[in-house]
Amino acid sequence: MRVRRAETIFGFVGSNVMEIPKPLRGVITAMITPLNDRDTLDHAGLERLIEHLIAGGVHGLFILGTTGEAPGLSYRLRAELIERTCKQVADRLPVIVGITDTAFVEAAKLASKAGKFGAQAVVASAPYYFPASQVELLDYLEHLAAEVPLPLLLYNTPTNTRHTFQPSTVLRAADIPNVIGLKDSGGNMTYFHSVVELLKDRPDFTLLVGPEELMAEAVMLGAHGGMCGGSNFCPQLYVRLYDAAVASDLDQIRILHSRVMRISSTIYRVGRYDSSYLKGLKCAVSLLGICEDFMAEPFRAFASAERAKVRQHMVEQGLLPSLA
Amino acid sequence: MRVRRAETIFGFVGSNVMEIPKPLRGVITAMITPLNDRDTLDHAGLERLIEHLIAGGVHGLFILGTTGEAPGLSYRLRAELIERTCKQVADRLPVIVGITDTAFVEAAKLASKAGKFGAQAVVASAPYYFPASQVELLDYLEHLAAEVPLPLLLYNTPTNTRHTFQPSTVLRAADIPNVIGLKDSGGNMTYFHSVVELLKDRPDFTLLVGPEELMAEAVMLGAHGGMCGGSNFCPQLYVRLYDAAVASDLDQIRILHSRVMRISSTIYRVGRYDSSYLKGLKCAVSLLGICEDFMAEPFRAFASAERAKVRQHMVEQGLLPSLA
Amino acid sequence: MRVRRAETIFGFVGSNVMEIPKPLRGVITAMITPLNDRDTLDHAGLERLIEHLIAGGVHGLFILGTTGEAPGLSYRLRAELIERTCKQVADRLPVIVGITDTAFVEAAKLASKAGKFGAQAVVASAPYYFPASQVELLDYLEHLAAEVPLPLLLYNTPTNTRHTFQPSTVLRAADIPNVIGLKDSGGNMTYFHSVVELLKDRPDFTLLVGPEELMAEAVMLGAHGGMCGGSNFCPQLYVRLYDAAVASDLDQIRILHSRVMRISSTIYRVGRYDSSYLKGLKCAVSLLGICEDFMAEPFRAFASAERAKVRQHMVEQGLLPSLA
Amino acid sequence: MRVRRAETIFGFVGSNVMEIPKPLRGVITAMITPLNDRDTLDHAGLERLIEHLIAGGVHGLFILGTTGEAPGLSYRLRAELIERTCKQVADRLPVIVGITDTAFVEAAKLASKAGKFGAQAVVASAPYYFPASQVELLDYLEHLAAEVPLPLLLYNTPTNTRHTFQPSTVLRAADIPNVIGLKDSGGNMTYFHSVVELLKDRPDFTLLVGPEELMAEAVMLGAHGGMCGGSNFCPQLYVRLYDAAVASDLDQIRILHSRVMRISSTIYRVGRYDSSYLKGLKCAVSLLGICEDFMAEPFRAFASAERAKVRQHMVEQGLLPSLA
Repeated sequence: MRVRRAETIFGFVGSNVMEIPKPLRGVITAMITPLNDRDTLDHAGLERLIEHLIAGGVHGLFILGTTGEAPGLSYRLRAELIERTCKQVADRLPVIVGITDTAFVEAAKLASKAGKFGAQAVVASAPYYFPASQVELLDYLEHLAAEVPLPLLLYNTPTNTRHTFQPSTVLRAADIPNVIGLKDSGGNMTYFHSVVELLKDRPDFTLLVGPEELMAEAVMLGAHGGMCGGSNFCPQLYVRLYDAAVASDLDQIRILHSRVMRISSTIYRVGRYDSSYLKGLKCAVSLLGICEDFMAEPFRAFASAERAKVRQHMVEQGLLPSLA
Repeated sequence: MRVRRAETIFGFVGSNVMEIPKPLRGVITAMITPLNDRDTLDHAGLERLIEHLIAGGVHGLFILGTTGEAPGLSYRLRAELIERTCKQVADRLPVIVGITDTAFVEAAKLASKAGKFGAQAVVASAPYYFPASQVELLDYLEHLAAEVPLPLLLYNTPTNTRHTFQPSTVLRAADIPNVIGLKDSGGNMTYFHSVVELLKDRPDFTLLVGPEELMAEAVMLGAHGGMCGGSNFCPQLYVRLYDAAVASDLDQIRILHSRVMRISSTIYRVGRYDSSYLKGLKCAVSLLGICEDFMAEPFRAFASAERAKVRQHMVEQGLLPSLA
Repeated sequence: MRVRRAETIFGFVGSNVMEIPKPLRGVITAMITPLNDRDTLDHAGLERLIEHLIAGGVHGLFILGTTGEAPGLSYRLRAELIERTCKQVADRLPVIVGITDTAFVEAAKLASKAGKFGAQAVVASAPYYFPASQVELLDYLEHLAAEVPLPLLLYNTPTNTRHTFQPSTVLRAADIPNVIGLKDSGGNMTYFHSVVELLKDRPDFTLLVGPEELMAEAVMLGAHGGMCGGSNFCPQLYVRLYDAAVASDLDQIRILHSRVMRISSTIYRVGRYDSSYLKGLKCAVSLLGICEDFMAEPFRAFASAERAKVRQHMVEQGLLPSLA
Repeated sequence: MRVRRAETIFGFVGSNVMEIPKPLRGVITAMITPLNDRDTLDHAGLERLIEHLIAGGVHGLFILGTTGEAPGLSYRLRAELIERTCKQVADRLPVIVGITDTAFVEAAKLASKAGKFGAQAVVASAPYYFPASQVELLDYLEHLAAEVPLPLLLYNTPTNTRHTFQPSTVLRAADIPNVIGLKDSGGNMTYFHSVVELLKDRPDFTLLVGPEELMAEAVMLGAHGGMCGGSNFCPQLYVRLYDAAVASDLDQIRILHSRVMRISSTIYRVGRYDSSYLKGLKCAVSLLGICEDFMAEPFRAFASAERAKVRQHMVEQGLLPSLA
């Protein structure tokens, strides 16, 4: 209903648009961006990745997020990724597009492209260069939502943006017509629970958690799903964990959560720098033969020594045949 | 067994010493320190508080932690609190004593007093003035443990100390004979799960979570209990939540966790400063008539306006009769 | 010489290019961006501002920096600003263009436009969304410099980017052919002095300091100049301060530095948020009738109450006639 | 006058008390604490160090600061250090004592001992475990000053305490009768200049800068002196730099400041951790044969490899004969 209102307001009427569920539930893969080079999308890799994820049972795709290296990609490539992903998915799943940008106009342009190519929603964090107050952030969200032809989810990711949408700001933003939810990647579950508490009278407002290490508890205690990066290479694990959380099957949750933590403690910790999560994840997908692990600046793919370690961890955890 | 070894090593032999369970399980109240004045313990308040907690069913007391305002108290008063608490408790519950200090010698002295007065264990975070590396922190823990005549729990509280005991440091510290566990107050559940994962072969190693907002999920996924501040005024709520978590009763957990979050979102948010948790908590205990809410510098008890707000929240949540 | 080499390498040959001095000396105004609206440059205001600055005696213009709100502007508008500024300046002063971007390709595009329109140099900080190590930052600078058809200055601004170019990284980057200097806006003079110390054998390497509050001491102790935001509204003050610093005239320095600190303590402190510097500065220029003070999201120009305070400070400090 | 008032108020009347100058000027050595062991003062080393400093021409001693490792020392040892230092100095120089503590009562006790043993002033930063607001900090300073029988200097050291005394808080604190000055170790010269600007009508209020790398510029622009750690091993260098700054002799300042920066960039950078300044400094004093470089937990003295590097730097900089 609220999406339709937004469409009416902003003049966007798509005849074949899949409406996004409210709330949106399940495992939404924070998709990596397959690259052949700094500014070249790996088309074949992208297709394989999308089919791998759909076959793996995930419930949606989130492209151009942190895991998708969006801030490091040219706008041309971002637009191409939106178009190709929407075309490949062909409404089999909701496609959600990150539009976070320091420049309002560029964020709005990305949202416009997301609408044009048939995505179901967009995601925006705070503009992240200048320090902004909560008042200024709410103002920003109101302005942005008014320019966005799709439902909008807020993206709380203070590690990358140094801004937190305070729970009271989220509550106020939830009254903006096309703001439909929050993805919280802050990793602070007290914050997340506070938002759940504040929004308990809004069962239609989507609450997703970013770090896959926190999905099980978040879903048990009020979240509608998670945007698990690890689902890029083993989607079934995260889907099964989500299902177990929905079913309140704690025995199963403990087994699967422990596997998630083992991935987090090994594959994501190869490499010396803070970027080891991104590099390890992309390397793991590459080792499955899905796409290359070329990374946008300022990063580089793992060299052979780290790659061998990722492979070893995957083999030990049954994520890769030993002779692969 | 390991406690006995420690006792032998350090020459401490108490005939009537209650041995601490390994792991230590349940709700361990991070006890506030009842004060009449800057350097005067509220004796009657302390007795009432301890009896209130024991009657409320908590499984242990943690004195001289952050919630106990320990760093703000004189050493004389800290020693008096240890002695009176141990005497009042009289081995009905384990008493665990915070010895965190920037000065090694003072931490060791507090530990010595804890041993002498009959406490069951001590808790130490990193010395928190100077920035120290993980190598230096491990070194410190080895030195400190050797001087401590009791089992020792690590205290990870980066918000207050700016130091994190990295999971790998915890793993190494767990090999120190009398180091028996970790209390994590960092609020980062990915960190906590990483420690659980690393220490899964050490079922005797106690893992407690600090923030009460995280106890439910922590216990469901590997913690042995929580050091809930809120249990100072409504111990039963946290004990019931712990029991529900142990029983994997998710329906009950959701109801009780929501009550915990309501307390956290209201009573702990009265007041403008970061100290609102401590002030709100002490005010709530005071409103129950248990002890005064005098606070050590640099804080002051809530004035009447804030006190009225805390009272109103308590009444609305059924924590105080409306005419109290 | 090195610029010419860069030109040869990158195929850029401009017949009428003013070569940038090495080192670049003096007051380089970190220019505000006059806006009529979110995506509309104030053309008349821009012309007046540039003429005001040239008449005021500044030694160069730095456009599209933090003070220019660059990260908040569309790329279209950024390109337009480069073109119009270069045209208006017409080689009367060096024009230096900020190209900092999270996306390598977009930074390189901006640099290409700067080259095409006749700017003398570009400035780039670290890509600021993802946390990057010093190794990765150096790698990034090498890649970027190779794509930039102009001399490049590094921009150290950890407050906004969370990245510091460590002194040893600056030293290594100084060996990249077209890297000609550093603008340090970190505000940490120990850092700045360390860079001066490390680069004392490179008298051609430009060292500029960002905060105008630090220009006097920086120039006395090794800097070649400053990028003073305040010179947008009173260029003469900063030029005189620079001249006094070059002349080692401490009596004059103390008088002028005190005026700079009074501006910093009053005009830049109106308003409640961290953005008060930017808002106060733009408001002051607007009060002189030079251009409007429209601000790009996430900010808004001061409302009338704050504007009146800025006016009062300006009048009291002789920066505005009392009846203006 | 104000000291006398404080003495009257607090009942402290010392017959032979040297009154502290207002403002206090010059190089005040932030003295290291010579230790033989964790809780054993190196008496002979202390005597040699004090005589070395007096012979070197410094204008005062600041004991029990960060450089003195005060937070890591037992209270017994701190009291012993105060007593022995005052006795050895015998009013030849002002002795200023750090009393910073998380516990108000302990800070007041240290101040009482400083008064009893004949020190001239005390220095206190914010209580640093709990996060406190500016209102709470001012409240704290008022309470503390009322209990302190000596003139009190504020100590701004956010790196260690996470608290900054905002300039407006310093201004208000300056109205407390026995608050006579500020030592700023924050390293942010914009902050320092703001304080100078705010307090320009209080020429009696002492303003000292902590980092020795900033003393020259601070003194040229309004500071009364510096608390240079490096003056522990080469007091003359800092005294000469101070004299040159007072004399506005920029040629001399540049030469001496460059030597200070070379020490800072070499001797203080041996070692891998943030503690390298403290370790390098104590090692340098030890290499001069003045005292041992034993360090309190959580640190250890440099091992032989690092010690050799410090020696080499000292030899190269003419601070140690090559065969020493």
